[in-house]
Amino acid sequence: MDLPAVWLRDNCRCAKCRDPRTGQKLFDITDLPDPITVTDRVEDEFAVHLVFGPDGHRSTFDRAWLHENQPGRGEQDFRVESAKDLWPSIDPPVFTWGGPELPWLESVLCRGFAVLSEVPVEPGAVLRVAESFGYVRETNYGRLFHVRVEAEPNNLAFTGLPISPHTDNPYRDPVPTVQLLHCLENAVEGGETTLVDGFHAAAVLRERDPAAFRALSGTPVTFEFADRDAVLRASRPLIGVDPRGRIREIRFNNRSLRPLGWSAEEITEFYRAYRVFAELLAEPAHQVRMRLNPGDCLVFDNTRVLHARTGFADTGRRHLEGCYADLDSLASRVEVLRREPLVALSALFAGAGAQDYLGEEVTQAEHMLQAAARAEAAGAPDHLVAAALLHDIGHVLPETGQHHDEAGAAWLARWFGQEVTEPVRLHVAAKRYLCAVEPDYFGRLSAASVHTLSLQGGPMTAEQAGEFAAGPYAADAVAVRRWDEAAKDPALASPPLEHFLPVLRRILERAGRPG
Amino acid sequence: MDLPAVWLRDNCRCAKCRDPRTGQKLFDITDLPDPITVTDRVEDEFAVHLVFGPDGHRSTFDRAWLHENQPGRGEQDFRVESAKDLWPSIDPPVFTWGGPELPWLESVLCRGFAVLSEVPVEPGAVLRVAESFGYVRETNYGRLFHVRVEAEPNNLAFTGLPISPHTDNPYRDPVPTVQLLHCLENAVEGGETTLVDGFHAAAVLRERDPAAFRALSGTPVTFEFADRDAVLRASRPLIGVDPRGRIREIRFNNRSLRPLGWSAEEITEFYRAYRVFAELLAEPAHQVRMRLNPGDCLVFDNTRVLHARTGFADTGRRHLEGCYADLDSLASRVEVLRREPLVALSALFAGAGAQDYLGEEVTQAEHMLQAAARAEAAGAPDHLVAAALLHDIGHVLPETGQHHDEAGAAWLARWFGQEVTEPVRLHVAAKRYLCAVEPDYFGRLSAASVHTLSLQGGPMTAEQAGEFAAGPYAADAVAVRRWDEAAKDPALASPPLEHFLPVLRRILERAGRPG
Repeated sequence: MDLPAVWLRDNCRCAKCRDPRTGQKLFDITDLPDPITVTDRVEDEFAVHLVFGPDGHRSTFDRAWLHENQPGRGEQDFRVESAKDLWPSIDPPVFTWGGPELPWLESVLCRGFAVLSEVPVEPGAVLRVAESFGYVRETNYGRLFHVRVEAEPNNLAFTGLPISPHTDNPYRDPVPTVQLLHCLENAVEGGETTLVDGFHAAAVLRERDPAAFRALSGTPVTFEFADRDAVLRASRPLIGVDPRGRIREIRFNNRSLRPLGWSAEEITEFYRAYRVFAELLAEPAHQVRMRLNPGDCLVFDNTRVLHARTGFADTGRRHLEGCYADLDSLASRVEVLRREPLVALSALFAGAGAQDYLGEEVTQAEHMLQAAARAEAAGAPDHLVAAALLHDIGHVLPETGQHHDEAGAAWLARWFGQEVTEPVRLHVAAKRYLCAVEPDYFGRLSAASVHTLSLQGGPMTAEQAGEFAAGPYAADAVAVRRWDEAAKDPALASPPLEHFLPVLRRILERAGRPG
Repeated sequence: MDLPAVWLRDNCRCAKCRDPRTGQKLFDITDLPDPITVTDRVEDEFAVHLVFGPDGHRSTFDRAWLHENQPGRGEQDFRVESAKDLWPSIDPPVFTWGGPELPWLESVLCRGFAVLSEVPVEPGAVLRVAESFGYVRETNYGRLFHVRVEAEPNNLAFTGLPISPHTDNPYRDPVPTVQLLHCLENAVEGGETTLVDGFHAAAVLRERDPAAFRALSGTPVTFEFADRDAVLRASRPLIGVDPRGRIREIRFNNRSLRPLGWSAEEITEFYRAYRVFAELLAEPAHQVRMRLNPGDCLVFDNTRVLHARTGFADTGRRHLEGCYADLDSLASRVEVLRREPLVALSALFAGAGAQDYLGEEVTQAEHMLQAAARAEAAGAPDHLVAAALLHDIGHVLPETGQHHDEAGAAWLARWFGQEVTEPVRLHVAAKRYLCAVEPDYFGRLSAASVHTLSLQGGPMTAEQAGEFAAGPYAADAVAVRRWDEAAKDPALASPPLEHFLPVLRRILERAGRPG
């Protein structure tokens, strides 16, 4: 471990360095000695203990924490292209309002949009959708705006004209990062909604025409909106990149682009690149087309996904209500929802998990932690470490009347996919299977496990074993079962649950990513 | 004029290209032919008329518009360092709440902060200050938050601990760009407020230690805030620059910096640079220190100005109310207020200005426009072109009982500085002065001017002339007077008022900049 001493010291977790109430650091970088060194270190199985010089400050770092935060992993910026799933086209991801929050919020974060159906067709309902994950960003258009034909429009959105792919409010800085459009009425010919993944188009541009990408990401342009009450201007490139060159923000709106002020040469190159990018965005193969019907609410990332609409008769009845919100609150809500199972699991391991594992010499928690440690030692992938860790969670859940394998799998399915839940659901069946197909397996069962085997139906018949082995999760369930049998050793130290939280976190993060 | 044809065509002002109701462009870049050329052009005194090929589209560009929007001027991004007045230290700019809005809003834009005094010491008053120029940005701390000692703080702000210079909410993306802190009570020892101009410090860093500047502007770092209800994370560099390398955003907050994930080498260089920058920010010479008293409201640019407070006893009575808002709305309000005099002047020139200029063969408006054209032709600086343009504005204002020189100057002083208002106020005195000191001047006066001379007190005495000539604005007033006399020619075409609006706009923009 050759971590810079200043990095270690700046991240000390002790109560003098970090306020236990808020988790915030209590010192400034200028409060640390310079240079700072590590003068002593002691390692044990789960932690690294350091002494720093010249001040003698002592810090202890949990190994799991060090693993999760190790340098070289990069910074996980939720706004940049590497955190997203880019698409040339895609079936609109439709979710039901009132159903689980996490999937549609993750869809907005990763795919850039989600369609919610069954949002009440009531004025103002769009604000309740925004407030479910964050805060409405009020603008000069109001907290809520109406997209319908106006007698005196201050924006082309409020006419029946077709509008080509664009991002909203490019003349605002900071730009609103999430937009919501809720359909109350759509009884016109036309008025269809088109979406384009601007990140994907920018990535294609970078591949096909690197000079054009450089021109668009390197040239601030000014957007302007002016009416009686506002004169808004913002100067930003059409393709915003982070300091590492990663795409993180698209602004695209010819309606409000002001005359470019750079040199004639720069202008000429900009216009060439602008046209190439606009042509890419206009390719039907890069567009998702859909019709919003009453009750549908489109939620999208306004820094990434461009939206457009086809024209319709000014006399037709089409009424959307819209509002703006921000991605940071949405990402926060996703993190809180992802954290929820970890909080619940921590409580279960510390509570019911501390009870005896009936008939064994370890507690329920120790048993599960040992099983997970076995899986980890075997080099198992994350989902099998998790399945080993959680295989008996049904034993420590409040009573449901189900067997513990079914109960555990059902509870875990709130957050985890089948790659975790199926080995859990099948780990009892795997015992019955192994007893049928491995002559010496029965002899290795603990006394308590022999006792429960008969309650569970005894060894499988040959026919049952054949069916079981043909299932897609049989091998995983068998692997979990073997670690389960090997995890009842009172002499073995178990790592704490914290050791496995990073594994669970990784799985929960990946779960949000469409396949 | 070698402007790129595509730039001209994309900026066509005709009603087919631009919606007259909204001012928004009605076509996309892909709707234009490629390549596009100028096939014919005709110029007259005030406009350039073009025909484009291959489609034959015709455009007319006002010369003043072309001048104002000419390429090569760069982009006027209100967020970057070049639009700001950087300071190492400064006397806090204090304004009275209820007084003129423009000066304190301009102070926030240009200096990064303003102190408003006499804001009512009432709960929620801070929200009314924010709503006077924009929209409150609600966050997980609420629409309004209380800065006072809390029993269970989720942030060190809510303790009595000292807090070193930082920007707020670096873990939010988009970050709130304006912060307001309104003092309701401050009866503690300590608890003083310190401000640092982060743009100035970054510019000094760039000068002193370019490698450190590169490290901080090139390394995204992650800030995090987590409590029961939120897990907020944002990854941005400490010094944000635009694609041209101009400073545009500072994030600085050691309390919430997450462990850096870059390589050990990058981490080492980052920490070196971070320490140098932190030391710069901590230099007393770079800090403004003040005490907020009940009724004071501090409004500052949270992307630029770092704030700090000294510690105080947890038992002391100190209570601030705070909220967040955004710079774009603030800048919009400034533009609307700056536009106001132009709107008023346009109405005056078109209304009362169209009346006869008593005893002369030109209208009031023609006279003023001719005077401004003379000043412009003489190569006069903006403020004298403006003074010439506006010298008789007192004639077209509603009656106030004052003489037209005094009335005009007083009205203009709402928006313009003395460099414009004093020559206007003195242009009649300048006539009396010139008649006294130049023997042939009287003979060049028009009949009407001779008539008014006696009403105005006749030529100055030698003593009066000596006093006048010693005044700081005498030469400017005399220059305006000479253009005034030469601006009564019925045979001369006057440029339209629009021709001079860019001059006025430039002056109004500069007026916001402290000297």
